[in-house]
Amino acid sequence: MKNYAAEIITIGNEILSGYTINTNASFISQEMLKIGLPVQWVTTISDTADEILFALEKADQRADVTLVTGGLGPTPDDITKNTICNFFDTGLTEDKNVLNHVRNLLKHRGLDMLESNIAQAMVPETATIIPNPIGTAPGLFMRKNEHYFFFMPGVPSEMKRLITEHIIVHIKEGLDLPEVRNHLIRTTGIAESRLYELLRESIEENPDIPIAFLPRHIGVDLRFRLISDDANQIDRYVKFISKVRSLAGKFIFTEQDIELEERLGQLLTEKKLSLSIAESFTGGMISDLITNIPGSSAYLLGSAVTYSNESKMKTLGVLSKTLEQFGAVSEETVTEMVRGIQKYFKADCAIATTGIAGPTGATETKPVGLCYIAARYGEKETVREFHFGTDRIINKRRGATAALEMLRRLLLDIH
Amino acid sequence: MKNYAAEIITIGNEILSGYTINTNASFISQEMLKIGLPVQWVTTISDTADEILFALEKADQRADVTLVTGGLGPTPDDITKNTICNFFDTGLTEDKNVLNHVRNLLKHRGLDMLESNIAQAMVPETATIIPNPIGTAPGLFMRKNEHYFFFMPGVPSEMKRLITEHIIVHIKEGLDLPEVRNHLIRTTGIAESRLYELLRESIEENPDIPIAFLPRHIGVDLRFRLISDDANQIDRYVKFISKVRSLAGKFIFTEQDIELEERLGQLLTEKKLSLSIAESFTGGMISDLITNIPGSSAYLLGSAVTYSNESKMKTLGVLSKTLEQFGAVSEETVTEMVRGIQKYFKADCAIATTGIAGPTGATETKPVGLCYIAARYGEKETVREFHFGTDRIINKRRGATAALEMLRRLLLDIH
Repeated sequence: MKNYAAEIITIGNEILSGYTINTNASFISQEMLKIGLPVQWVTTISDTADEILFALEKADQRADVTLVTGGLGPTPDDITKNTICNFFDTGLTEDKNVLNHVRNLLKHRGLDMLESNIAQAMVPETATIIPNPIGTAPGLFMRKNEHYFFFMPGVPSEMKRLITEHIIVHIKEGLDLPEVRNHLIRTTGIAESRLYELLRESIEENPDIPIAFLPRHIGVDLRFRLISDDANQIDRYVKFISKVRSLAGKFIFTEQDIELEERLGQLLTEKKLSLSIAESFTGGMISDLITNIPGSSAYLLGSAVTYSNESKMKTLGVLSKTLEQFGAVSEETVTEMVRGIQKYFKADCAIATTGIAGPTGATETKPVGLCYIAARYGEKETVREFHFGTDRIINKRRGATAALEMLRRLLLDIH
Repeated sequence: MKNYAAEIITIGNEILSGYTINTNASFISQEMLKIGLPVQWVTTISDTADEILFALEKADQRADVTLVTGGLGPTPDDITKNTICNFFDTGLTEDKNVLNHVRNLLKHRGLDMLESNIAQAMVPETATIIPNPIGTAPGLFMRKNEHYFFFMPGVPSEMKRLITEHIIVHIKEGLDLPEVRNHLIRTTGIAESRLYELLRESIEENPDIPIAFLPRHIGVDLRFRLISDDANQIDRYVKFISKVRSLAGKFIFTEQDIELEERLGQLLTEKKLSLSIAESFTGGMISDLITNIPGSSAYLLGSAVTYSNESKMKTLGVLSKTLEQFGAVSEETVTEMVRGIQKYFKADCAIATTGIAGPTGATETKPVGLCYIAARYGEKETVREFHFGTDRIINKRRGATAALEMLRRLLLDIH
């Protein structure tokens, strides 16, 4: 079994200018890693013949598979395709299928066929065409000896379809790739260093089983990957994941590729429960996250963003003496908020947040980042105090995550 | 005046795996472009001596300034620094200032000094240290003949400070960079192709003045950049921007580097107006955007996310006969919503949205993407019908943008 390596070449000035982030490379890298073909080089260059030729030559020397995005648009002077022909020592020819497809696609969009569109049907003679159902530029598959080259348009949605529907198939058919096992565990509410300490012994007992710690805004992802045909190693891989699962325990909110708000939506749906939300600190972010999930209207009855004291009293029934005595940012107020919003909507569950998101608004006793969050499920209730940082948007994000996680634990009776 | 070119080298497996997007390269490219030093190559490689050495050599041949991120962390085997010494033909030496800084930083965080931290004070003898106030790895500035090399840690917040506070100063002092003029015009509510048609004649009259169309989720940015000392050309540049300003007119929401919600916040603050929001289609996204802006508590009184018919009636006073006769997704309902939320909070201004965000929820007469939005300023009111697409999150985003823009126009009396 050979160890294969891939290179990504991104062609385009919009990436070099910095105003477009190279998310294409990120997507392709992840997809290749899943099939056991790690990307070792990502090269971004401008759309000029010299640069393209040099990058192709370099990739040919070091990689087994090269994936090129960009440079295939309907521009009049098609530098990329001519350079490809030069590199592969071939010429351009018209492909009737591509021409028909372009004509139909434009017709469907109510557009006329332009000369530049006709030019898109000109493809290198020795290329295998990869159909692009949603765009006018086809993908190209070409070989140089044992080296595979794939050329794709730079439009992310088109590139993604070519990769997942065709290119992965071509690569798997052609190369003797190793069998890869992937597993994902998503955690929240624990810092990377503490999580590492929890798992350290198990990790050290399994030095040959790769585990990656990937910190995100809302928590730490653990990604496991095993490339092996050895039954004993595979067995230890499965046991290692089990061990991590039991050690990380309550911090794990899912082992699927979904976010915390979607996990919470699954739980609410399974248990047939309704939800209402009162947001001060988070200013609507929790509601926004919850309603990103299709079907959330089945459990979200409604939310109130109560930025003013008046709105806390009027909608949530927070008492004026509570606000006077303890202030809007207090355990007492958030408790009345969560009870108030549950009652207002007659909801099974409720979440409430209050705090000082910053950068202004701090008082002598209440610093920026101070936050109180409450969650309720029926009569069960948890209230917690948090001390976040000074960045307003990160504070909102951390508060929203903590609130969702508190309700998840309450629903699952996790302490 | 010479045309300089820069290269970015990103070292790190987390970028190659695809799980971290290379936003560092994007930031650096933008900053360099602003000072007239375009990035022509971005190269991402793994943290191995061979790869680093090859990338440095290649950059030395083709670029004038090379900016390297990553590979400077507190890992025991510091491949990057040894490779740098190899490339620059120098050795490592301990820097007392860096050592003191690392010690103080760790002490401040309540951490002990580890051997790996002490190693971070070892720097190439011929390097100029670039202090890193918020991290343990310093930046390095080194020269090879006329070529400038900058080495930075990969942590985005640390890299950004090194770039903006030190590296740009070094580059500007050392290189005879051209004078660059940058201007930004942000538009919303008009498609790229239509905007281009509006401006086509002016663009064709000024072929030597670069203008870039940058489509974003919420609209199209126009970026102007002139590298010239020619008084006549500079004069035409200024006139060209004026002309574009008058042609794009009402679609321009700012010429600052701010978002629409911040622009709206400026207007509300200037006019001393308060705001309330009723969100169904957008599910809290408008409130979330508004409250991202520091100081928004001064004008946002409160919001209601009214996902259920009950909440539309209870909080907003929408009549049950309106819901029965026209449905929750209708011009009539959104009108009652916007009036209701304005009244509920006694606010000067109000926004309301209702619609079918998708992917489910469509009826025979009401497709996914149908959306009604209303804005009020005192007694002035606008209500519009929109037909967005099928992607739930993009629909919410487009609805939120349209709502903010409708209120902006109402406040400025733009029709």
